Amino acid sequence: MLSGIRVEPPAFVTHGVIVTGVTLCVRARTAKLARMYRAMVIEGGFGLDRLAIVERNEADPKAFEVTLSMRAVSLNYRDVLMIRGQYNPRQPLPLVPLSDGVGEVVAVGERVTGLAKGDRVCPLFCQRYFAGEPTKEKIASTLGGPLDGVLREQMTLSAESVVKVPAGLDDAQAATLPCAALTAWNALVEQGGLVPGQTVLVQGTGGVSTFALQIAKAMGARVIVTSSSEAKLERARALGADHGIDYKKTPQWGKEALKLTDDRGVDLVVEVGGAGTLGESLKAVRPGGTIAVIGMLAGGASEVNVIPILMRNIRVQGVFVGHKEAMVRMLRAFDSWSLKPVVDRVFPWTEARAALDHMVAGAHLGKVALGF
Amino acid sequence: MLSGIRVEPPAFVTHGVIVTGVTLCVRARTAKLARMYRAMVIEGGFGLDRLAIVERNEADPKAFEVTLSMRAVSLNYRDVLMIRGQYNPRQPLPLVPLSDGVGEVVAVGERVTGLAKGDRVCPLFCQRYFAGEPTKEKIASTLGGPLDGVLREQMTLSAESVVKVPAGLDDAQAATLPCAALTAWNALVEQGGLVPGQTVLVQGTGGVSTFALQIAKAMGARVIVTSSSEAKLERARALGADHGIDYKKTPQWGKEALKLTDDRGVDLVVEVGGAGTLGESLKAVRPGGTIAVIGMLAGGASEVNVIPILMRNIRVQGVFVGHKEAMVRMLRAFDSWSLKPVVDRVFPWTEARAALDHMVAGAHLGKVALGF
Amino acid sequence: MLSGIRVEPPAFVTHGVIVTGVTLCVRARTAKLARMYRAMVIEGGFGLDRLAIVERNEADPKAFEVTLSMRAVSLNYRDVLMIRGQYNPRQPLPLVPLSDGVGEVVAVGERVTGLAKGDRVCPLFCQRYFAGEPTKEKIASTLGGPLDGVLREQMTLSAESVVKVPAGLDDAQAATLPCAALTAWNALVEQGGLVPGQTVLVQGTGGVSTFALQIAKAMGARVIVTSSSEAKLERARALGADHGIDYKKTPQWGKEALKLTDDRGVDLVVEVGGAGTLGESLKAVRPGGTIAVIGMLAGGASEVNVIPILMRNIRVQGVFVGHKEAMVRMLRAFDSWSLKPVVDRVFPWTEARAALDHMVAGAHLGKVALGF
Amino acid sequence: MLSGIRVEPPAFVTHGVIVTGVTLCVRARTAKLARMYRAMVIEGGFGLDRLAIVERNEADPKAFEVTLSMRAVSLNYRDVLMIRGQYNPRQPLPLVPLSDGVGEVVAVGERVTGLAKGDRVCPLFCQRYFAGEPTKEKIASTLGGPLDGVLREQMTLSAESVVKVPAGLDDAQAATLPCAALTAWNALVEQGGLVPGQTVLVQGTGGVSTFALQIAKAMGARVIVTSSSEAKLERARALGADHGIDYKKTPQWGKEALKLTDDRGVDLVVEVGGAGTLGESLKAVRPGGTIAVIGMLAGGASEVNVIPILMRNIRVQGVFVGHKEAMVRMLRAFDSWSLKPVVDRVFPWTEARAALDHMVAGAHLGKVALGF
Repeated sequence: MLSGIRVEPPAFVTHGVIVTGVTLCVRARTAKLARMYRAMVIEGGFGLDRLAIVERNEADPKAFEVTLSMRAVSLNYRDVLMIRGQYNPRQPLPLVPLSDGVGEVVAVGERVTGLAKGDRVCPLFCQRYFAGEPTKEKIASTLGGPLDGVLREQMTLSAESVVKVPAGLDDAQAATLPCAALTAWNALVEQGGLVPGQTVLVQGTGGVSTFALQIAKAMGARVIVTSSSEAKLERARALGADHGIDYKKTPQWGKEALKLTDDRGVDLVVEVGGAGTLGESLKAVRPGGTIAVIGMLAGGASEVNVIPILMRNIRVQGVFVGHKEAMVRMLRAFDSWSLKPVVDRVFPWTEARAALDHMVAGAHLGKVALGF
Repeated sequence: MLSGIRVEPPAFVTHGVIVTGVTLCVRARTAKLARMYRAMVIEGGFGLDRLAIVERNEADPKAFEVTLSMRAVSLNYRDVLMIRGQYNPRQPLPLVPLSDGVGEVVAVGERVTGLAKGDRVCPLFCQRYFAGEPTKEKIASTLGGPLDGVLREQMTLSAESVVKVPAGLDDAQAATLPCAALTAWNALVEQGGLVPGQTVLVQGTGGVSTFALQIAKAMGARVIVTSSSEAKLERARALGADHGIDYKKTPQWGKEALKLTDDRGVDLVVEVGGAGTLGESLKAVRPGGTIAVIGMLAGGASEVNVIPILMRNIRVQGVFVGHKEAMVRMLRAFDSWSLKPVVDRVFPWTEARAALDHMVAGAHLGKVALGF
Repeated sequence: MLSGIRVEPPAFVTHGVIVTGVTLCVRARTAKLARMYRAMVIEGGFGLDRLAIVERNEADPKAFEVTLSMRAVSLNYRDVLMIRGQYNPRQPLPLVPLSDGVGEVVAVGERVTGLAKGDRVCPLFCQRYFAGEPTKEKIASTLGGPLDGVLREQMTLSAESVVKVPAGLDDAQAATLPCAALTAWNALVEQGGLVPGQTVLVQGTGGVSTFALQIAKAMGARVIVTSSSEAKLERARALGADHGIDYKKTPQWGKEALKLTDDRGVDLVVEVGGAGTLGESLKAVRPGGTIAVIGMLAGGASEVNVIPILMRNIRVQGVFVGHKEAMVRMLRAFDSWSLKPVVDRVFPWTEARAALDHMVAGAHLGKVALGF
Repeated sequence: MLSGIRVEPPAFVTHGVIVTGVTLCVRARTAKLARMYRAMVIEGGFGLDRLAIVERNEADPKAFEVTLSMRAVSLNYRDVLMIRGQYNPRQPLPLVPLSDGVGEVVAVGERVTGLAKGDRVCPLFCQRYFAGEPTKEKIASTLGGPLDGVLREQMTLSAESVVKVPAGLDDAQAATLPCAALTAWNALVEQGGLVPGQTVLVQGTGGVSTFALQIAKAMGARVIVTSSSEAKLERARALGADHGIDYKKTPQWGKEALKLTDDRGVDLVVEVGGAGTLGESLKAVRPGGTIAVIGMLAGGASEVNVIPILMRNIRVQGVFVGHKEAMVRMLRAFDSWSLKPVVDRVFPWTEARAALDHMVAGAHLGKVALGF
């Protein structure tokens, strides 16, 4: 059952349910803690075929815990790698996949403060990363592997490890925040130190890249987007992109980016392609600029020439999501900007396989979500 | 003629002149502006064989300029690449090579303030990089290519583009500061943000690496040094290194570094080998840590897996020397620490070819200098 | 003669000249270097009555200099203090006052690159502060005291010490940038590290405060403005302010600001009143927040309780304009945002006294400018 | 009973027990959880006379808690204000005072990891401040008011809220770390961004100031110390201070500090006197420098001229202790430096009143501790 989900016009047929292009209001549900709930798990081996729905029992939350009735979740490319067993290291099975979601609090542990039944919250991607330096322990506490993820009707977790979401976002939009949006925010703002008036180059139009485009524009940066599709570049321009480069027509897009900045180079590149595109990024970026490495689409290992990194004082910054304090700051900014995540399409959660196929096919722009 | 050079015991035979292990005082020379001076140039083509001594004329310095009588210079690996024509891009010839040196002011332009005859100063490596962000123009203004370098008896340059050196350093020591020392300082302090108590891994015992070892120890960091030579590791320990790893015996030194930090990983790696060693550096560094890329010994292009950069929030920071303001801060620190650059050996400047061969042979630890 | 000045509707009567509310285009003037020009100077003693117009000779610019034909200048409160002799330390006379202005290049020294006749440029407020740390020398090189200022038809200065202004701003707008706009930018962005979604409290609606309001809103911050005038608060809201506090009705506006932030406190206060208002600012700001001290309206010496600074980890940051590199970044942001400085009224430059009286009367919002 | 406490020669008479100047080894005690323990409390009203010893019961630690048998505690000036009822706001009574201490783990909750019986740990001063931005909640969770402090034989607290201490420090030394040492570390390193070679001015020779002196010297800064006592200045010089200023003989010590820095000004002032001394600090500090406000000795309210803050771009930074992550970094640095806290004198814990009188009398240098 779809709830509180704003579907972008034009209407999408989400597997049998025709959703018209109206904005459904976010309504207060009166969900209750269920003793039995359904979850989707990878079990018996890796592969998109191994996703199965199972039933699980739920106890009352412990003193510092809350139980959520999930409302919507969304997909990241990491989920595909995880389900296929291509994520390194492979995680023990069975595993509930997916890390981005939003739910409604249906039960509250006795010593929890600041949260009440009916609150709409996102679980943190890194459940134990609240602030400060990353550590092995903090960044290993991730949902959707090794910890069970969000693709289930109900989940119980530490009350410290969730964040309330603003009323202005519907469920599908809110379900995109903990991993995809926070990664983009972290790349640009927290670690990137982006200054208004600077120029950002964003690779592609996937989930994180689209957030990066939106955030950079909201701050007052100029944005160059690369894509292999003119149609996607057109949509990126509609979202505010100042320039689009079709990298099939212009494989040497690094040079093109230089031209677009009067030969100064871009200040920050959002690098999602991995080593496959790093060479062009190094050409595009200005001396002293930053390449924020946030994705793993193109695979990791590749021939890279480090001399330009050295000679032009470039920073290549790995960005692995972010902590709770950064997420709270981001939510305030999104609220102030009235920034709405771009949801490409919403599937019923039981149709997760179809949603994953849709994302792998690469026809989407922004995020693919699942509703409960 | 050697002047003001402290030679480390045991005595070195510097091409026919036996220098005993005494400390020669830094004396005030009474050098004068010469109308004619000798310079060593690369001309007629690249190659160590193409170094030749030529005579040049010197005019009076312009209003904002000073003329220096050079006292000592020192070698960087960049000089070898430059002379061999392996530096990218190739520079126009003829060119006076070398970028690190110290001289005595022998003439002062009429509008110069703050400098007087007899002052001992180092020319900046980047002649036009005084502070702030690097730009193409700033980082292109480097001595020893494209600008004529320091391997000459006399040079005239902008008074803004030199820095007075502390009395506590002899000429050969002072001649190592503008490029080699400043690169290490920048990698650790200005860009690295090193905090006392952190752990630094330094690759090898070349000029920059030895400075990095000394600076890190002076601040109170723990230091791990890698080398292929037990003898050099022994000398590194004498300079304060806490641990030495022989990478011939332990090719997977990244793992070894992890062990030495109770599995936390080192906070900062001084990466001089380029892509050839980057894989091990990525294993050695902690989540959120920094790999400062400062050298080009092992060549640039190589297979690099960027996934660990992303997944562990690592920063790969190119470090291209630094600006004047950083150099002034560094000189104050060196003075406060009484830190003495490690000079391996001092050759007469006319024996530059022999000095270059000595460095290429790799038997040195620290810096190779030339005296005038 | 007014040139290229966009006057905001409704029309202002600028001392006899009725300027209608039309937007005058920025036109390329064909001004030439004049051998004789007029300047307004403070001479024979301090006081608004001592302003007098004198004639001066102009030589050709030296090798690295340019000569500007001034198009517009604007007033800062500093100018009032300077002219009255209340600025500490008092400056030697005669002195050309005012520091904010814009002019057209009419002559270019022979070694100047990157500037041509006809370029429209702003002189830097600190003529020798290009980047990096402030020093006594850098921050003493200010126009309008001790250096002769911009209230003159023509001026010659170092080509390094001017910045080209974007075409999107008319002359009066461009004349507000070097001191007033840059101070606000520095307070919020360069030194303040403002993050979108944070809350800024701006005191009053003077020149710097109005820039702070505009910049904070453009970045996506929430803004609270204080004023003693409901009419000014209304205009501030029209410029984007989220909340206005009338400090005559609510003298304890610090508490009110706390309420407006759900008791969290504001992230950054733009403090222009000096010690007179610092007590309320300390109540308004969050633990770990910043009070940017940028003005001297209320006089300096006052009873201040430093305990809250200590106990709540507050930063009180003095902000003295900024350097060239920051100004270049600001201009890019203004261009990207299409941000237009708020010019309250434009007087002919010969009517400087009337303009100063207008500002001292305090009826303005934003900047008071003078046209040539 | 004193345990594991290294007493500095010459021997001190600590209330009837003559302690010779020998170094007592840190021995592993075999303390056990006691069901009944003694605590000193302020009750029935404020005042040094109202300290009384009471008996309390101890239950087993909860799942995430540990119980400590206290070994040593130390005094801060905050404790005096707290006990006298001069701390603002006044805290509810009864209250166990004191916030700095070290204890041995004697019981471990069932879900605690990383801690075992026998471990020697310090409780955090801010029990809930682990990393990141300060918030009202975080900085209110302080021991010794509002939370019960460390002046008791035994205490139970969250396992997350303690930090293991290095073996190289004895109990009295370790008991000075959470508040006094961390404040100095935070002022200089975490918030101050001190760079080796910079100059620090430290006011006085109290607990935090002595740590600041030691830390600044260990990093390679130059240090100027002010005091009203030549004897204390002599001891400060023995700890490494480069210059001492007797502020009774030189009340205008700000000017003197300027002279000692060739008129450049000091980079960072450790301001403990509050508003009473701020005027001189403003004269001593360089443009762009920092005044770290860390104390409340001289009372808070005072006439302060904010103009120099503004005009010279000065930062006045309140420093309220620090978080756990900073403390862990500090302990690594102390370990790397082998830095030993300066313990002036050790009293038996039951003689807390005498120890407080000793501190109030102001004859101490460094920290006053109490042993169990």
